[in-house]
Amino acid sequence: MTEDKQKTRERLVYEMARLVQTKGFNSTSINDVIQAVGIKKGTLYYYFSGKEELGLAVLEKDRDDFLSFLETNLSGKNPQKALEQFFKAAFKKHKDTGFVGGCLWGNTALEMSDTNPVYKKVVEKVFSEWIVRIEAVIRSGQQTGQIRADRSAGELAYLVVASIEGGIMISRITKKDGPFKSCLNSIRTLLRSENIHKKPDNHIR
Amino acid sequence: MTEDKQKTRERLVYEMARLVQTKGFNSTSINDVIQAVGIKKGTLYYYFSGKEELGLAVLEKDRDDFLSFLETNLSGKNPQKALEQFFKAAFKKHKDTGFVGGCLWGNTALEMSDTNPVYKKVVEKVFSEWIVRIEAVIRSGQQTGQIRADRSAGELAYLVVASIEGGIMISRITKKDGPFKSCLNSIRTLLRSENIHKKPDNHIR
Repeated sequence: MTEDKQKTRERLVYEMARLVQTKGFNSTSINDVIQAVGIKKGTLYYYFSGKEELGLAVLEKDRDDFLSFLETNLSGKNPQKALEQFFKAAFKKHKDTGFVGGCLWGNTALEMSDTNPVYKKVVEKVFSEWIVRIEAVIRSGQQTGQIRADRSAGELAYLVVASIEGGIMISRITKKDGPFKSCLNSIRTLLRSENIHKKPDNHIR
Repeated sequence: MTEDKQKTRERLVYEMARLVQTKGFNSTSINDVIQAVGIKKGTLYYYFSGKEELGLAVLEKDRDDFLSFLETNLSGKNPQKALEQFFKAAFKKHKDTGFVGGCLWGNTALEMSDTNPVYKKVVEKVFSEWIVRIEAVIRSGQQTGQIRADRSAGELAYLVVASIEGGIMISRITKKDGPFKSCLNSIRTLLRSENIHKKPDNHIR
């Protein structure tokens, strides 16, 4: 593909992603996308067989971006710090959007998981990859004694991911950052193996 | 309204609700609904001005059902038991559907909260009512010493509701009850003010 063609393809994916993030897949039409990019419908069909394939390209690009985000932010030798760094990065990412759009994975999970098996497969893979990575960090934290061990790392990993998705959901409805921030700060406190009456420190403000 | 007319209205709301639960509002058309009920389009317009008003009737009916569900299941004098009873009822409700459809409030929050201000208002009210009630139970539990008090009742209430919504989401993608069950059992353990190393008891199996 020439550089120009590559750019057109990227703009199609970018505009589709932007529309899907606010309106969802079902409400985004091919016409919306070509209008946003400023091309004719025929041009779109040079790159994609239709909306389904374009939507898949959006999910695949977002999957790669999200895996890089995990790689960057859920890292380091100290498991508790790695989790906290990840929480802060996730909070910043969503606060910066004013909680418009929310989490593409959560949105697509709820919109498509009962109706589109191809999209569902990508979403399921992303969640499973995310949960496995959080689980590994929690397990290390349990081994170092930082994280409580009265529930398994796997069970706590589900709770962490669920709290993040649910927290984004409530902040998205209220358009306030408080609910998501509370969820993150509370899950941090609750995961600690230290004395549970100790004062919280260094929380997201 | 005569009894027959009342029944037709109820069937319209019921079928719209059923369709919305799996496909979402945007993908459900007036034609889908009239086909499911087996009436002509003109008949629908006798009851509702259009899809928007029918959708609102679905949300209002579901809001009333959900408030009754809260009334029934989040009750009793023992705050910890009230929470546990609510968790069990929520788990059963969703397990019984095989995690198809998920939570209408979560779905509508993600599908409509950036695009439909009328629906958003109903969804926001339901979440706020839900959070306030959970918060009151947690506050009582903190007063009786059953629930940890190192985070405020309001912050913990956000976490509880977020864990439920996120848990349903992950179970809906995977079509397995394990993730939602883990979230509920873990949040129960983590909320307790007792020694955090005590063995878990009486969890949802």
